Amino acid sequence: MPQAEKLTPDARKAALADLNGWSDSQDTRDAIAKTFEFKNFVEAFGFMTQAALKAEKMDHHPEWSNVYGKVDVVLTTHSADGVTELDIKLAQFMDKIQERVKS
Amino acid sequence: MPQAEKLTPDARKAALADLNGWSDSQDTRDAIAKTFEFKNFVEAFGFMTQAALKAEKMDHHPEWSNVYGKVDVVLTTHSADGVTELDIKLAQFMDKIQERVKS
Repeated sequence: MPQAEKLTPDARKAALADLNGWSDSQDTRDAIAKTFEFKNFVEAFGFMTQAALKAEKMDHHPEWSNVYGKVDVVLTTHSADGVTELDIKLAQFMDKIQERVKS
Repeated sequence: MPQAEKLTPDARKAALADLNGWSDSQDTRDAIAKTFEFKNFVEAFGFMTQAALKAEKMDHHPEWSNVYGKVDVVLTTHSADGVTELDIKLAQFMDKIQERVKS
């Protein structure tokens, strides 16, 4: 896999504008973040499972936490020390499946 | 399901001694906590999936976060405002499957 490069500020801004509800996060490091809310644990973990399979296939993994129906996701690319196209792709996928898991 | 009751300090101490590597956590609230370490994301998420199915069956859910091969788990019983037998049972189950998912 070619090394993913850190997005330029303009490219990142444009990518974030196209995503659904992701925000810049510079809390502890350069990343993008989103809180997904589901109606229960089954939906939340169903979402996580689909995202996990995608993440493993991409060899690009989220940092995430879950409490019942809530999933907090942080995406960053360690090798680039920032946000790359890999994070945007995984974020797009998560946005797409977010609706799919809702019963 | 009968309401789970908060363990007495003695019962909790005894239960913790029988678990593998769980510690008392009073950071933000009364709970028990453990960090599980796996060699990669597949093992970590395999562990989470087994634990998720058990948690849903028990109707008792963990608070947890995952970064690649690491899973941080916090267990507490909201309705009891502390640690109950439900937390001990879920912790025992997690200890049991911890070894099972390692390839």
